[in-house]
Amino acid sequence: MKGKSPQSTLLLILHSKGNTSVTDTLTKDWKSKLTNGKAVYLFDEGDAKMRDILGGKGANLAEMTRLGFPVPPGFTVTTEVCNVYLNAGNKFPADMQDELKTAMAAIEKKMGKGFGDRKNPLLVSVRSGAKFSMPGMMDTVLNLGLNDETVQGLIEQSGDERFAYDAYRRFIMMFSDVVMGLSKHDFDKLLQKKKKELNITEDSLIPAAALKQLVDEFKAKFKAEANRDFPTDVFEQLSLSVEAVFRSWRNPRAMVYRDKEKIAHDLGTAVNVQSMVFGNMGDDCGTGVAFTRDYNSGAKVPVGDYLTNAQGEDVVAGIRTPKPLEALASEAPEMWKQLLEVSKNLELHFKEMQDMEFTIEKGKLYMLQTRTGKRTAQAAIKIASDMVEEKLISREDAVLRVAPGQLDQLLHPSIPAEAKKAAHAAGRYLAKGTGAAPGAACGKVVFEANDAVEEAAKGHPVILVRPETTPDDAHGMAVAKGILTSTGGPSSHAALVARGWGIPCIVGCEALRIDLDKKKVTVNDQTFGEGEWLTFDGGTGEVYLGHTQLQEASELTAETKLLLGWADEFRKLGVYANADTPKDAERSRAFGATGVGLCRTEHMFMERDRLPIVQEMILSAPKAEALHRQELRAHKELSEQVEGTRRHSDAKAALDEAIARKAGPWKIYTDCLARLLPIQREDFHGILKAMAGHWVIIRLLDPPLHEFLPAHSELLVDVARLRTVRDHAPDSYNKVLEEVRHRREDRNATLESLEEMLHRVESMKEFNPMLGLRVCRLGIVYPEIYKMQVQAIFEAACDLVKAGIDARPEVMIPGVGTVEEMRFTRNLVETVARQVQEKRGIQVKHKIGTMIELPRATVVAGDLAKNADFFSFGTNDLTQTTLGYSRDDAAGTFIPVYLEEKILKNDPFQVIDTVGVGRLMKLAVEEGRAANPQLEVGICGEHGGEPESVAFCHTLGLDYVSCSPFRVPIARLAAAHAALASKAGFKDK
Amino acid sequence: MKGKSPQSTLLLILHSKGNTSVTDTLTKDWKSKLTNGKAVYLFDEGDAKMRDILGGKGANLAEMTRLGFPVPPGFTVTTEVCNVYLNAGNKFPADMQDELKTAMAAIEKKMGKGFGDRKNPLLVSVRSGAKFSMPGMMDTVLNLGLNDETVQGLIEQSGDERFAYDAYRRFIMMFSDVVMGLSKHDFDKLLQKKKKELNITEDSLIPAAALKQLVDEFKAKFKAEANRDFPTDVFEQLSLSVEAVFRSWRNPRAMVYRDKEKIAHDLGTAVNVQSMVFGNMGDDCGTGVAFTRDYNSGAKVPVGDYLTNAQGEDVVAGIRTPKPLEALASEAPEMWKQLLEVSKNLELHFKEMQDMEFTIEKGKLYMLQTRTGKRTAQAAIKIASDMVEEKLISREDAVLRVAPGQLDQLLHPSIPAEAKKAAHAAGRYLAKGTGAAPGAACGKVVFEANDAVEEAAKGHPVILVRPETTPDDAHGMAVAKGILTSTGGPSSHAALVARGWGIPCIVGCEALRIDLDKKKVTVNDQTFGEGEWLTFDGGTGEVYLGHTQLQEASELTAETKLLLGWADEFRKLGVYANADTPKDAERSRAFGATGVGLCRTEHMFMERDRLPIVQEMILSAPKAEALHRQELRAHKELSEQVEGTRRHSDAKAALDEAIARKAGPWKIYTDCLARLLPIQREDFHGILKAMAGHWVIIRLLDPPLHEFLPAHSELLVDVARLRTVRDHAPDSYNKVLEEVRHRREDRNATLESLEEMLHRVESMKEFNPMLGLRVCRLGIVYPEIYKMQVQAIFEAACDLVKAGIDARPEVMIPGVGTVEEMRFTRNLVETVARQVQEKRGIQVKHKIGTMIELPRATVVAGDLAKNADFFSFGTNDLTQTTLGYSRDDAAGTFIPVYLEEKILKNDPFQVIDTVGVGRLMKLAVEEGRAANPQLEVGICGEHGGEPESVAFCHTLGLDYVSCSPFRVPIARLAAAHAALASKAGFKDK
Repeated sequence: MKGKSPQSTLLLILHSKGNTSVTDTLTKDWKSKLTNGKAVYLFDEGDAKMRDILGGKGANLAEMTRLGFPVPPGFTVTTEVCNVYLNAGNKFPADMQDELKTAMAAIEKKMGKGFGDRKNPLLVSVRSGAKFSMPGMMDTVLNLGLNDETVQGLIEQSGDERFAYDAYRRFIMMFSDVVMGLSKHDFDKLLQKKKKELNITEDSLIPAAALKQLVDEFKAKFKAEANRDFPTDVFEQLSLSVEAVFRSWRNPRAMVYRDKEKIAHDLGTAVNVQSMVFGNMGDDCGTGVAFTRDYNSGAKVPVGDYLTNAQGEDVVAGIRTPKPLEALASEAPEMWKQLLEVSKNLELHFKEMQDMEFTIEKGKLYMLQTRTGKRTAQAAIKIASDMVEEKLISREDAVLRVAPGQLDQLLHPSIPAEAKKAAHAAGRYLAKGTGAAPGAACGKVVFEANDAVEEAAKGHPVILVRPETTPDDAHGMAVAKGILTSTGGPSSHAALVARGWGIPCIVGCEALRIDLDKKKVTVNDQTFGEGEWLTFDGGTGEVYLGHTQLQEASELTAETKLLLGWADEFRKLGVYANADTPKDAERSRAFGATGVGLCRTEHMFMERDRLPIVQEMILSAPKAEALHRQELRAHKELSEQVEGTRRHSDAKAALDEAIARKAGPWKIYTDCLARLLPIQREDFHGILKAMAGHWVIIRLLDPPLHEFLPAHSELLVDVARLRTVRDHAPDSYNKVLEEVRHRREDRNATLESLEEMLHRVESMKEFNPMLGLRVCRLGIVYPEIYKMQVQAIFEAACDLVKAGIDARPEVMIPGVGTVEEMRFTRNLVETVARQVQEKRGIQVKHKIGTMIELPRATVVAGDLAKNADFFSFGTNDLTQTTLGYSRDDAAGTFIPVYLEEKILKNDPFQVIDTVGVGRLMKLAVEEGRAANPQLEVGICGEHGGEPESVAFCHTLGLDYVSCSPFRVPIARLAAAHAALASKAGFKDK
Repeated sequence: MKGKSPQSTLLLILHSKGNTSVTDTLTKDWKSKLTNGKAVYLFDEGDAKMRDILGGKGANLAEMTRLGFPVPPGFTVTTEVCNVYLNAGNKFPADMQDELKTAMAAIEKKMGKGFGDRKNPLLVSVRSGAKFSMPGMMDTVLNLGLNDETVQGLIEQSGDERFAYDAYRRFIMMFSDVVMGLSKHDFDKLLQKKKKELNITEDSLIPAAALKQLVDEFKAKFKAEANRDFPTDVFEQLSLSVEAVFRSWRNPRAMVYRDKEKIAHDLGTAVNVQSMVFGNMGDDCGTGVAFTRDYNSGAKVPVGDYLTNAQGEDVVAGIRTPKPLEALASEAPEMWKQLLEVSKNLELHFKEMQDMEFTIEKGKLYMLQTRTGKRTAQAAIKIASDMVEEKLISREDAVLRVAPGQLDQLLHPSIPAEAKKAAHAAGRYLAKGTGAAPGAACGKVVFEANDAVEEAAKGHPVILVRPETTPDDAHGMAVAKGILTSTGGPSSHAALVARGWGIPCIVGCEALRIDLDKKKVTVNDQTFGEGEWLTFDGGTGEVYLGHTQLQEASELTAETKLLLGWADEFRKLGVYANADTPKDAERSRAFGATGVGLCRTEHMFMERDRLPIVQEMILSAPKAEALHRQELRAHKELSEQVEGTRRHSDAKAALDEAIARKAGPWKIYTDCLARLLPIQREDFHGILKAMAGHWVIIRLLDPPLHEFLPAHSELLVDVARLRTVRDHAPDSYNKVLEEVRHRREDRNATLESLEEMLHRVESMKEFNPMLGLRVCRLGIVYPEIYKMQVQAIFEAACDLVKAGIDARPEVMIPGVGTVEEMRFTRNLVETVARQVQEKRGIQVKHKIGTMIELPRATVVAGDLAKNADFFSFGTNDLTQTTLGYSRDDAAGTFIPVYLEEKILKNDPFQVIDTVGVGRLMKLAVEEGRAANPQLEVGICGEHGGEPESVAFCHTLGLDYVSCSPFRVPIARLAAAHAALASKAGFKDK
């Protein structure tokens, strides 16, 4: 086999076992199929636009070379050659070797060195470089071109034997690992053994002789593992490396990555071969990574790390602690000056912050790579706005430079990444639940709302840990730094309340086994209890044991406001906020919301001082309204009879009886409503005032009423306990009763009263509350509740208008599915609104509309639109019903599996399901607008603050999106991105 | 004002207070606007086709007259005159009186009597008669034409003073009540007083003199109440009556009735004036009601009631007990002969069974009315098939003559109507729940499943009364005559099981307050307990205290089979049955189903002997499948690594660990499945065998798994009780533990085991199970369960095919919402099916399809159809999600209010919501068939047996409907009706 070309040898050794398909034969004219007929480009032959054939890295190196930056000479083998090679069944065309040689000759000339020259050897690096950055592919091989002969030349060149052998042993190790797929571990073991023999711990202290021995040991190991000698022919080294890069395009991880990222499998990768420069040839050498601006703050000053007398991998590997880049200014002022110059010019050219790799070889600066630098949200904003000021980029560019999702970081406290890492390392990571309300929290564990209040009063931060929460826990929730439940989903009571109040929250953390009796939680084999510190991330759902210093969120910076101002110029979508309190409304205004898209009146009901009234109202409603309905029927019967007839007098008697029966229950019910009226009026007054001049969409009562009642299971247990002690331990009865009374905070509770309450709660219990007596069904079955709410809204608005404040309520009917429901409730709202306005002699600008949150509503949208001034998509519920997924259950059960099995691309409660839910939304928008061209259409589900979903809403042509106050900046930016992406023209909002 | 025309006088007295609108003035040429210029038609001038202007009653009287039947002469004032009158503000044209006089003159001539003639007076009846029968309108006035003078003529004519004064006092009373709107009660009081004075109880015993006094007293009362004298002018009497009829068209009850029945308000009513004949002038007189055939059995023999010497109202009022019609045969053979003749001829003419009113006056038969007769389902079928045999009607007519909904009566036991009436009267009616499984039940109350078994074993019929049922109660449910729960809806456990097993069932009967401890139920102020008799109607939901003799259901009669055979000739829709057991399948075949459209495998899981295995399987599934998934991930990770590298060996180690971790839990899980496999195989074997040659659609496991687990609330109470005695009464601990063990039927239960079970049940508990981990989500998260089921299906089918039996399974994937779910599950089914068939060397005809029961499925139906052989609409679930109504909750909460307020026309779980759900179905059918023209499309929700919904399915062009076995005959007939109605051509099935 000897005398054959190197690649034949290679094929013999490494013949792929994989299923590479041979589709082309290697024809003589293979080059004629290449762009420009070229297989290889010297760096000075290409430019930044040639990413398709040179890959991203190659194109940027070419660009820098073309512009005269100090780039070590090199060449790129194109992506097209990769495809030729792969399609030929991993074979090179016969004359490919010549191409490499020709290109190498050009570099030799530029460098004044010879590839494989034993006196003055040229060494190169080999790197993969596809059009899109691909972590699944081959890493870098450095120092290629070394063998037992050229290493001598390197010694001569550098005058440093230790350096040369170190380079050689590194090359063998990398080549074995990266090109040949041998275990790096095996080589590492030899290295460690050597250090142990020498009794040293630092690689840099290994003497030259030992390194030379190590080279021999490495070569022996290579032979043993690869079953051949380590290649001494430098072109064979090169060929094998280039082929390894090409083959890595099809390794399983790369395939999986491309599938996931939807990158075409036929793009191929390029290979970059670049002459080595050495940062480890002495103290006038060094290597580093530099960003043209501060990636944390965005300040316009290069930052980064560098190491004197080191190779790039030392920086990355973290074996030595690098120095901050600015140390260069004093250590090597000339280099610093050059780097500043390069940095400035690269930015001027690319008009972007750059992430550069550089090496200083004996006082000369080389640029090895440049690419767009990653940065924090804060930096992204500052850089973008600075660059506009510097006239580097336009405002549009600036807006597009900041990813909307990034803004989330700016607005909540967070756990620093290092702290998380440390917690993991220390085994303090406990479990993961559903992140229900963003932000990090740290506090001492409490299990009962009363304990939370008590501890908080002492100034201790507390985390309330419960299996689930109910309105009874609200006072404890209000004072907690964070809320953690073991059950429930993102629209459970805990989640809703926490989001409304801006308290970080994790729900459905099912790994927690909470024993409320013992006030202990078991997680797998760990246990913690009351008073212990807990830290969690309400965004990711991660829970940690112990105390952590959190990173505080900042207000919107001036730059952020500036950038969002530009975004506002470009977006077509309005951005409203979901706000339930005057405080929320004010915060929304500060974040730039120009309306309230969803004011949830139920959150007002849940506040502690109101809850008893609300509960009494709810428990009295069914009977009172049923008796009222009987009275109405009796009225109707009477109206149908001719006066003076017996039928008439019978009907009159029946009516009198119905009126008498109704009186008592009706009084209890309406008294509760009368007590709630001024409270609600005050709520609405505050919000409408805070949003003066802007529309406030107020949703009438929406959730199933039993959400306001005491928890059924707790009642069940209390009753069972009391019955058991009564029957078996009468002496303990009073003691247990006291316990129950204390826990329930009900001094008058008795077994009988609890049994009665249990019965009433059971009679209102529903199997699927999400699909039960809620939304507008409440307003139709219990119209008095809606009437009270509408009265409160219009009384508040009238008061404001009278005081000269432009209050603009929009009344939103939730969960309408039929046009009859819309007509019924619209009529109810109009009647009460008219009565209030007439009584006060004030006209209030207002609208009446509906939430589109049921599939049937989308199907009859045309008819609904004739009876509605606006539609607001409640995409949370619409997703639930369209897909048949309970938001409270799905996240904890099948959605993780669905994501893993790629049944779902995204959690549809996070990102709108455009195919399913989106099609119904489109239908509703089209038929709604066709029936009522004035129809205002928006979205108020949490999707309204998620960038992909915002883009979809833009495509649908909605008027606005509405989201929680903290997501308003995200939505503003996402809306601008969508508008700029669709180039649909700009419109001032 | 005297001397004015009578109608002016009338206007003075009765000027309407209502808002009658005057749109026409009374012009001279008012008659030119009438059809044929005629305001009044003599009976011999009209015919049956003239319902528009003569009304239904008038047209039929004209038709009978025209055909020579013995109808007392008369005339009809047209509906057009009614409109003239009403539009003129309740005024007659001046010459209308002449019209009446002319017509009356014609009658006088025919009868040889004079209207108002003191010697030989003509008396008439006045009746309303609109185009459509309208209960809201004026009743009949009899004996009109009597006054103090003509009554003398009547005495002379009849020779019976008592008769004459009785007729006179009756006339005054009816006129006062019906025409003048005075209180009948006032007159009745005078009558009762008179009888008391005379010390008699029967009206017929009041002597002539007393009746004469009564006439005077009535006239005085009239004057006092109406503030005028009783009119003596017979034409005034007539005018007032005609006007009263006309005005009654606009009384409130008639308006409401027309609104409800969507009858136009401008039709108007006609007035029929007919000469009186008297059945109460002696023993050669009589009156009665006759049906041309037996309305109960359908036998071809006239049936009815008659009274000798009586007027029609006596028959209706039930004061005397009438004799059966056939008594006429012996009592008055000539009359009987004439009646038979009339009966035969009327049927020959109308080609329908007739409901006739007749009077015999002094040996002469008069026909007063004829109309289509109402009949029972059984009679309807017999009459229709007999009439075909008699060549009176075609087969199409016969099929259309029977209302599909009527057939329901034929197939279940029922409570006789009289028994219900009696129960109401006796105060034994208790409450109304949701009728969940049809049929009546009567038995002794038990509260526990074990007690049910014990009592049933003694031969006692039992009704199981529970707040709700769980699988633990299944053994008690199986032996019960009926099941009654106080909570839950039509798809609660109780309802599903009961329907599956054909046991009458009521759920959600919320008026019941069940105290299981005391074994007592309180309903309002009544109480009943264990051992007491209860009777209920599972169709209507009515519950009665006490024992009732039920009417047993009969098998399909020969006539029914014949008629349904004709129906089969006309229908285009196939009719399948929902059958879960071989017995169901056999019954379905007997009822004419040609396939099984839904075989629910979960019902097989719920049987008592299997439940423990099923529970163990479910409790082990989450952990086992999660560990299995970890193993798969480890496998994948390994496959991505290059052999020989360290990464490869690390991945190998991780895989080994994952395999080891999985082993234990996996064994428990798969052992359960292995035990269930032969049981399921046997189930499928039986059903496929029973349906040999026909398709059987088997749905893979569908409900949330916790439905199979012990009830959470019971576990909660048991644990609370045990903890309480442990802490407060340790001496009682063992006693309570024994009680708990006994009730749970678990000899090994301990507090610890129950706590563990409680935790596991809680961890599987869902907030909205209907939208949770169920349907195909189960098969994706726990694929082993589906694999076991598919294996069982195909093993059973292979065994049958091998034995020469044509087994044809269709595997149905429930709850698919995305094409990815369809692909995943289809692949699973195909893989297992192939393995089984290959192993057995047998090919099984089969299909794989999906249930369309989520809005999203309808939206992506085109894509689904490319991966499915069939669609089956699960309209129960599709209704739940499209409307956002929980079937279990809605019926007990807002649907009754919605029906009352006319928000809904029908309960959408009974009748398909064609506007909403129907539009989505249409979309799915169209896009599904477009993508896959071979697609088979059916429906398997309970709507498949509801006539209106079947008609809609016909319109959609579905291939078949499937419903519970007992509804198969209904569906066959409804499908024929739909096909005949749409005249879409006939097709043999």
